[in-house]
Amino acid sequence: MCYGAIEAGGTKFVCAVADENLKIIKKVQIPTTSPQETFKQIFSFFNAYDLKAIGIGSFGPIGTNPNQDNYGYILATPKKGWTNFDFLGTLKKRYDIPVVWTTDVNAAAYGELLMGAAQGKTSCLYLTVGTGIGGGVIMDGQIFQGIASPEMGHIYVKRHPQDEYEGICPYHHDCLEGLAAGPSLEARAGIKGQDLPIDHPVWDIQAYYIAQALMTYTLTLSPEVIVLGGGVMNQDHLLRKIRQEFTTQMAGYVETPDVEEYIVRWGLPNKSGIIGSLLLAQTIS
Amino acid sequence: MCYGAIEAGGTKFVCAVADENLKIIKKVQIPTTSPQETFKQIFSFFNAYDLKAIGIGSFGPIGTNPNQDNYGYILATPKKGWTNFDFLGTLKKRYDIPVVWTTDVNAAAYGELLMGAAQGKTSCLYLTVGTGIGGGVIMDGQIFQGIASPEMGHIYVKRHPQDEYEGICPYHHDCLEGLAAGPSLEARAGIKGQDLPIDHPVWDIQAYYIAQALMTYTLTLSPEVIVLGGGVMNQDHLLRKIRQEFTTQMAGYVETPDVEEYIVRWGLPNKSGIIGSLLLAQTIS
Ligand SMILES: Nc1ncnc2c1ncn2[C@@H]1O[C@H](COP(=O)(O)OP(=O)(O)O)[C@@H](O)[C@H]1O
Ligand SMILES: Nc1ncnc2c1ncn2[C@@H]1O[C@H](COP(=O)(O)OP(=O)(O)O)[C@@H](O)[C@H]1O
Ligand SMILES: [Zn+2]
Ligand SMILES: [Zn+2]
Repeated sequence: MCYGAIEAGGTKFVCAVADENLKIIKKVQIPTTSPQETFKQIFSFFNAYDLKAIGIGSFGPIGTNPNQDNYGYILATPKKGWTNFDFLGTLKKRYDIPVVWTTDVNAAAYGELLMGAAQGKTSCLYLTVGTGIGGGVIMDGQIFQGIASPEMGHIYVKRHPQDEYEGICPYHHDCLEGLAAGPSLEARAGIKGQDLPIDHPVWDIQAYYIAQALMTYTLTLSPEVIVLGGGVMNQDHLLRKIRQEFTTQMAGYVETPDVEEYIVRWGLPNKSGIIGSLLLAQTIS
Repeated sequence: MCYGAIEAGGTKFVCAVADENLKIIKKVQIPTTSPQETFKQIFSFFNAYDLKAIGIGSFGPIGTNPNQDNYGYILATPKKGWTNFDFLGTLKKRYDIPVVWTTDVNAAAYGELLMGAAQGKTSCLYLTVGTGIGGGVIMDGQIFQGIASPEMGHIYVKRHPQDEYEGICPYHHDCLEGLAAGPSLEARAGIKGQDLPIDHPVWDIQAYYIAQALMTYTLTLSPEVIVLGGGVMNQDHLLRKIRQEFTTQMAGYVETPDVEEYIVRWGLPNKSGIIGSLLLAQTIS
């Protein structure tokens, strides 16, 4: 008996199988093509195992309300062919076992809480700053979910005084994701984030927006710790700038833990999601 | 046996006693002076009753984390004499009965959920737009509380293109409260909200900020319904404008219930807090 996990992303799927102690037995990457083609490969991977349960962390937006018809579906996504695809139903039809269905970032938050940078806490916010910006929340050890999956990357933000970039979100232009995800960083500076010199002024703008968002999440959700992941967060100096900006913007209004402990980097780089999904599978079997 | 409730505000305290069916037996208003003087009057009111439990909804910020030393305290408040006052301890020393301690807006949210505009739901956000802006959240029928009490009135917002008002928050200048609470509305227009003509351009700015905040709360908390209260929300046309703006700003990104049902006005005008506090008292006795 073993646990299965799927981290479903817009460019690739990661599928893994682990033993009862959550030791990973096998892991594969599947490019995200059409749902049919992708699932063919998912099935051919999992078919070799006697699975007890599966945990899924999926790109979104997704239907997460069990009382709604779209539960288990991928909703309106720019990813061709996936809008209104019945992800959970497709999987359940093949494997008659318990499945946990949540967002990629919720799964990552869960992974970080139990085995990563938020170990020992009962709540955390996980925020990825990569191709997009997305957040997952654990409260009292449980995935925090309202009537829809949170899409906290799309909040509007106060402008940095030196920033006139129009923003890149197809829905909102200058929401957080539109101003501070990897592609907007690149568009504003004309250079990819990984190639941008540390002293480029764009990093101040970047830190300003991320810090502001962390302030908003703090004032609404008040998690014990905020874990940052994603490609853009590979920059040490950015993390330092974010912490400084956060302190400046909060202006001492609400007491938060020491910023070095409150705002941290992921403890399971690029693995929080798949490990969180395995951990979620374990919870229901 | 009866239940007691305190709605603690910066200008006045409302104290109430209700019977086992939550029918209010007596209610008084006490002006907020010094903690000592105010509590003298609170005690003299409650002493006449055999109380089973007390529910408190207090102005803030307050210490709401039972694991911290400041639990039950009023924290840094501009209200003279109240910073670091041990509210809960003072009450507990006098009455050795169960007490529920939460923010004024959480109590109001609870009241609205069980007996007001959010009846029949299991989650709601209550937002007051009055002298300040504050929000309370119920999730799964319980007060939602992270490590600190939420102070969601102080999130930063994207500027309305026609608004150059600097903002009035002593901590953040142009946070939501600094730009859209009653006093800022008055400062921007030069006229009190209650006297402002319906066609004054300031209402568009007002609606823009409130709607934007509701979008942020939706994307982070995703409640079933948002209940708006407070003096400024006495304006019918403002509620309509907020709904329109909310729809525009969301740009269809996340599915939310029909906006007429999703964004509503309080069902217990000026009473949500005290009724919520009574209901909370009932939960622990
Ligand atoms: N070291 C780095 N510094 C800054 N930006 C980076 C770095 N590495 C990757 N990025 C940016 O992060 C984005 C990709 O994010 P990533 O988290 O790797 O993938 P995804 O979000 O698609 O899962 C790209 O915009 C890329 O330019
Ligand atoms: N009908 C109204 N229209 C617009 N603004 C109003 C109205 N009534 C009161 N206000 C404003 O609301 C604020 C007071 O809010 P209120 O909720 O009554 O009190 P508080 O927040 O202090 O408990 C003041 O700024 C006042 O100008
Ligand atoms: Zn957006
Ligand atoms: Zn403020």
